Amino acid sequence: MIKVGIVGGTGYTGVELLRLLALHPQVSLRVITSRADAGTAVSQMFPSLRGFVDLLFVHPDEAHLEQCDLVFFATPNGIAMQQVRALLEAGVKVIDLAADFRLQDIASWEKWYGMTHACSDLVAEAVYGLPEINREKIKSARLIANPGCYPTAVQLGFIPLLEAGVIEAGSLIADAKSGVSGAGRKAEIPALFAEAGDNFKAYGVAGHRHLPEIKQGLALVTGGDVGLTFVPHLTPLIRGIHATLYGKLTRDVDLQALFEQRYSNEPFVDVLPAGSHPETRSVRGSNRCRIAVHRPQGGDTVVVLSVIDNLVKGAAGQAVQNMNIMFGFDENAALNIVPLLP
Amino acid sequence: MIKVGIVGGTGYTGVELLRLLALHPQVSLRVITSRADAGTAVSQMFPSLRGFVDLLFVHPDEAHLEQCDLVFFATPNGIAMQQVRALLEAGVKVIDLAADFRLQDIASWEKWYGMTHACSDLVAEAVYGLPEINREKIKSARLIANPGCYPTAVQLGFIPLLEAGVIEAGSLIADAKSGVSGAGRKAEIPALFAEAGDNFKAYGVAGHRHLPEIKQGLALVTGGDVGLTFVPHLTPLIRGIHATLYGKLTRDVDLQALFEQRYSNEPFVDVLPAGSHPETRSVRGSNRCRIAVHRPQGGDTVVVLSVIDNLVKGAAGQAVQNMNIMFGFDENAALNIVPLLP
Amino acid sequence: MIKVGIVGGTGYTGVELLRLLALHPQVSLRVITSRADAGTAVSQMFPSLRGFVDLLFVHPDEAHLEQCDLVFFATPNGIAMQQVRALLEAGVKVIDLAADFRLQDIASWEKWYGMTHACSDLVAEAVYGLPEINREKIKSARLIANPGCYPTAVQLGFIPLLEAGVIEAGSLIADAKSGVSGAGRKAEIPALFAEAGDNFKAYGVAGHRHLPEIKQGLALVTGGDVGLTFVPHLTPLIRGIHATLYGKLTRDVDLQALFEQRYSNEPFVDVLPAGSHPETRSVRGSNRCRIAVHRPQGGDTVVVLSVIDNLVKGAAGQAVQNMNIMFGFDENAALNIVPLLP
Amino acid sequence: MIKVGIVGGTGYTGVELLRLLALHPQVSLRVITSRADAGTAVSQMFPSLRGFVDLLFVHPDEAHLEQCDLVFFATPNGIAMQQVRALLEAGVKVIDLAADFRLQDIASWEKWYGMTHACSDLVAEAVYGLPEINREKIKSARLIANPGCYPTAVQLGFIPLLEAGVIEAGSLIADAKSGVSGAGRKAEIPALFAEAGDNFKAYGVAGHRHLPEIKQGLALVTGGDVGLTFVPHLTPLIRGIHATLYGKLTRDVDLQALFEQRYSNEPFVDVLPAGSHPETRSVRGSNRCRIAVHRPQGGDTVVVLSVIDNLVKGAAGQAVQNMNIMFGFDENAALNIVPLLP
Repeated sequence: MIKVGIVGGTGYTGVELLRLLALHPQVSLRVITSRADAGTAVSQMFPSLRGFVDLLFVHPDEAHLEQCDLVFFATPNGIAMQQVRALLEAGVKVIDLAADFRLQDIASWEKWYGMTHACSDLVAEAVYGLPEINREKIKSARLIANPGCYPTAVQLGFIPLLEAGVIEAGSLIADAKSGVSGAGRKAEIPALFAEAGDNFKAYGVAGHRHLPEIKQGLALVTGGDVGLTFVPHLTPLIRGIHATLYGKLTRDVDLQALFEQRYSNEPFVDVLPAGSHPETRSVRGSNRCRIAVHRPQGGDTVVVLSVIDNLVKGAAGQAVQNMNIMFGFDENAALNIVPLLP
Repeated sequence: MIKVGIVGGTGYTGVELLRLLALHPQVSLRVITSRADAGTAVSQMFPSLRGFVDLLFVHPDEAHLEQCDLVFFATPNGIAMQQVRALLEAGVKVIDLAADFRLQDIASWEKWYGMTHACSDLVAEAVYGLPEINREKIKSARLIANPGCYPTAVQLGFIPLLEAGVIEAGSLIADAKSGVSGAGRKAEIPALFAEAGDNFKAYGVAGHRHLPEIKQGLALVTGGDVGLTFVPHLTPLIRGIHATLYGKLTRDVDLQALFEQRYSNEPFVDVLPAGSHPETRSVRGSNRCRIAVHRPQGGDTVVVLSVIDNLVKGAAGQAVQNMNIMFGFDENAALNIVPLLP
Repeated sequence: MIKVGIVGGTGYTGVELLRLLALHPQVSLRVITSRADAGTAVSQMFPSLRGFVDLLFVHPDEAHLEQCDLVFFATPNGIAMQQVRALLEAGVKVIDLAADFRLQDIASWEKWYGMTHACSDLVAEAVYGLPEINREKIKSARLIANPGCYPTAVQLGFIPLLEAGVIEAGSLIADAKSGVSGAGRKAEIPALFAEAGDNFKAYGVAGHRHLPEIKQGLALVTGGDVGLTFVPHLTPLIRGIHATLYGKLTRDVDLQALFEQRYSNEPFVDVLPAGSHPETRSVRGSNRCRIAVHRPQGGDTVVVLSVIDNLVKGAAGQAVQNMNIMFGFDENAALNIVPLLP
Repeated sequence: MIKVGIVGGTGYTGVELLRLLALHPQVSLRVITSRADAGTAVSQMFPSLRGFVDLLFVHPDEAHLEQCDLVFFATPNGIAMQQVRALLEAGVKVIDLAADFRLQDIASWEKWYGMTHACSDLVAEAVYGLPEINREKIKSARLIANPGCYPTAVQLGFIPLLEAGVIEAGSLIADAKSGVSGAGRKAEIPALFAEAGDNFKAYGVAGHRHLPEIKQGLALVTGGDVGLTFVPHLTPLIRGIHATLYGKLTRDVDLQALFEQRYSNEPFVDVLPAGSHPETRSVRGSNRCRIAVHRPQGGDTVVVLSVIDNLVKGAAGQAVQNMNIMFGFDENAALNIVPLLP
């Protein structure tokens, strides 16, 4: 039984962490902070948690996070980096669901996120928490940079192809579609029901913060720079990401076998039978990534379809998976959830 | 050709006014104000209007509204009452789509809207712009209080029954459901797609501002106080209100004939055949109210189903209808729109 | 560990039973039948179940249901009544999720369901599976008539008031709204996305099959006939029922205390604090019913708001709850699920 | 005033034709056929048309289509080709909204549509009704093959680039997303609200019927074969197509100017300012195609975003545009509609 704290519990990744951790057999949820809502019962803000979470939101100054074994940061970008050093020094492990520790290139991070990094030395120590790539490092990590939602879906789709060296690394295309919860629980007009409902659009075509994160991850696989065009879209889903990935094959290969072998031991990556089209709802509420690989008309373009729930495998679920690995728990603990369909 | 101005054009009733007025053959749209977005092209904020509206938003101080023949206020409550007197004195007619002039009882208004009324003397002059009740008064009005969305749907459903005196006026029930655009184009968390989508809830059961407005309107019909339980709900529609109305019959009557006769000359109220269930989408984008009346199992409870598009007959369309009546235009001008289905 | 079979597993109640039973610690899922899809893997039809359910659909003739301890019927109305007698005689317990055993009045059943009943003698034995009323009888039942979705939400809302005798039993109104999954997984035009999406309508105002079921249930509580106007509506939700209930108070009473006391020992009925408005999403995917009670403006009309997930507490979850009670399992087994929000 | 008939009026393209034609000043709508619903009032099936269309559906055998000046076929594939010859011989012009006359290569058509073509000689005469390419031919055509929805959005996006010869024609990618109405008003499980709602998926990756249509159209532009990977997706919209197009630039060019010049005289193609992201709702209910062109990070990949309403510019609206051109009407007649937003 470990003592767990959550910083910033009023957003969608916060409530999703609570949904998962509330039933984790080895977790004692001790504290959840909110500056604005200190004193409010968590279950008043999120009635779905009535009967499962009895905590009140606590002001950060009274949280005593140093008494926890693990702290999750479910905060906006730029918060965790202010607090992580003290926690690590107190012997607390940290999983940051925001972007503070995702990019090893500090200059790039500062450009994309528009602020000065507060602890660039700790970035080097942070382990990028994509278990399918970094499981061993995660086991011994003190500080996890939990991946972004798009980067998770896109990397898991490209990794088998790039590891095997069967596609051109210089001309990758990722056409990704996200549900609206990906924008967070923030009062902004574009995320209103009457704006995002019955509507579909691309955004950030000129550049999106997840682009350097994906490129960094894929470059580690190829050992060199990759060329990627990344176009995110907003689709009227609550949850779900669908990444449609395009690559140019450089040689003939059994794509289906390649993917199945790569992920044969991965508990949360499911390679669908040849010819399949994964649906976002087939992973709704679960930590799975489902993938299908196609080669239309037998040409030299490979098409990979990769779906996740952006709040689970794309955020809170992957964070719990990382926690399970860090603390030697069953990797599936609290994540053995059947997706909700319909 | 009349010169028209709009105050507060960045909300949903504003853009809806623009959609309708852009094609009105007798309207010259002269000015549209926005304090926050002055200088921005209207069609940049609302790309749907590209090719139809060439105006920029203008700061209120530079709007010269007194040069208009008619000004619509598509503003939050409490704005119009600050400006109407000067406009009326300049000979400009005014239609207020907000609530400033809807309640004749100033004390009640101040209680429900939480502010002091700025021009209570003008309230007495204002005509409540429900043409099905007040067409003659509207013709000569200088100042129109455009009805609320719920009040329009609910009053049109109850009026035939109360005018005929066939239901108990003391025990009316209005169970009303609204699309999310009814909350306006405001950045508020409960109206987010990820909050309001795939979700249904009641709200304001203890009391809603439209309750006194409905009661006032119905009391004019009955000549005495009415008893009304009004329960609004939020449903994951963009547009549309469905009011389900319950009354206790006091005597036998041909309900179908009663409704058909009452509305036989009304261009925008459509009484459906007996046994029908009107759908909100059957009025989407149009100024129609469609109504069906039922008497389940032949008992003494009458059930009226009344649907409107909250942004059209419930707001901007009714405002244009009022303008048409005030200026002697064809009442149908700019409102001859086939609903968008599917 | 009991052996369980499901008849008719290709509908929404079928896949929902599978979602719940797949993780039940005392259930061995042995067989699931489908006439049309025999031989198909369950997880091919419902990819959400990949990794959780390995069964193929089996033709009913080869199902050997008599070897089970319990069989669920997730079939259209009229199927279970053909097969139940043989199963009971073989010592198999049965939970019917359809309507075959819900109405004790056979003539009424035959009128509403349009067919002759095949085993009216067994109807008398069947126990109506609403645990909040019938827990003791369920414990020893061989045959459970699992309640309908609307009847569950409506009865749970009215029961405290009628048991206490504080409202007129002759003038109840239930204005109920259901998500589209309530129509089942059937290829019918009104349930298409482009028909039911962004649309709201009432249906069945003249009479709905759940009306006699609700009236029968409430009459048991009052000991006499009840008068009920029941108006169901279709709302663009996937899952969820919201029942808005109206009754006329006959005497003063502490409504909040009344509800809290009535359900204080019920694991799946949650009475919200005074002034609350339950949301359907607060029970999404869970077996909870959440209820709030209001008395608007202190008048004599009581308003009860009752929400359930129509596929869980309104169908499969309640069936599992009944199974747990019948076999002496923890009533919460496999139902300890945090609702999915957002 | 021309006399117009519609064959097959009960689908979404049929009701959309009715919505547009009902207000066309030069069209007299004479007859609309339906085999299954003969005798039913059109406005009973589509209450949105109450007050606009008074016709009953007529059995095809009693339709006297030869008395019309123009007949639209809004039928499933394979119907129009059975009837067109007789109509042309009677001097009636025909616009087929289905695919019967879209592919000049009969063998390809027969392969993709799985039937023998009934009048391959007429295919050669048919004019592909994309006005932005074929306006002159349309003016004198007797028989129009109205383009498919995806082909319209995709071709309009690629045409400027291919005409100018600035991208590789051999490696085009079209990642397209369609609302569910694109599947038609057919009772099929995958199009149910509870299946397609809150869900996103690709389909037909191995091959879709619109692939050869797009390739044929683009090959006419380039004068040679094109290589295209086309991946359609289903997104929870009622209406709307968003095509995201990728091409590899072969030389430097002012992309914004290229697009603006190409479409400067086109009434229904709107090139957005540089940096824009068109939304599907910005064309909802209208015949516009809105396009933006991007060159992310200044690389050699061009990204085109193209949106249409699949039922208007992608079907019925384009058919009316073709009719207007054929009969010398104002091309904008009945199409001067402001998109419905929100």
